[in-house]
Amino acid sequence: MVVTIMYVIVVYDVNVKRVGKVCKFIRRYLPHIQNSVFEGDLPESKLEALRVGLRNIISEDEDSALMWVFRDNKYADRQVIGVEKKPVTTFL
Amino acid sequence: MVVTIMYVIVVYDVNVKRVGKVCKFIRRYLPHIQNSVFEGDLPESKLEALRVGLRNIISEDEDSALMWVFRDNKYADRQVIGVEKKPVTTFL
Repeated sequence: MVVTIMYVIVVYDVNVKRVGKVCKFIRRYLPHIQNSVFEGDLPESKLEALRVGLRNIISEDEDSALMWVFRDNKYADRQVIGVEKKPVTTFL
Repeated sequence: MVVTIMYVIVVYDVNVKRVGKVCKFIRRYLPHIQNSVFEGDLPESKLEALRVGLRNIISEDEDSALMWVFRDNKYADRQVIGVEKKPVTTFL
C-alpha cells in the first residue's frame, strides 16, 4: 500500500467562542507551530477528515480557515524570523 | 529583463506593542488575507527587503514570523473553509 504524504499549512481566524475547539481539532492532525497556525505532513487519506471536521466546527458565516496543500514540501523555502516556536505535539 | 515572481505566505505572532507596525510593514509587500496572515505574488527582488525589514522591526527574542516562499503557486491546492476574507489592498 502506498501512503501519499502531503505537506499542509492551516491558519484559522474564528470567533473567540470556537478558538479552543478549532485549535484542539486541528492539533489532532497537524503540529501547532504558531498562534492559529498549523503545519506538517499529513497522509492524503486524512485530509478529507480534516476538511470535513473543520466545516462542521466552524461557522461558515463568521469564521475562516485557510488550507494550503502541497504534494511535497520540496517546493517550499521556509524561513523563520525571530523565535522558532517549537511544534506542539499533536497529543497534548 | 526577466522578473521572477514568487508566491509567498507570511504569518506573524508578535508582541501586541508591535502588531500595528509589523502589519503595516508587510502590507507594503503582500495582501493581508486574514488576521496576521499575508499571501500573494512578490517579485523575487523584493523578498530580501521584506525579510530584512521584518528582522529590523520584530524582537528576535519575543516575536516570530514565518515565511514560505514558492517558485510557483501551481503546487499549492488552496482551500477556504468558511468566509473568504477579501484581500486588503497593499495601499491602505
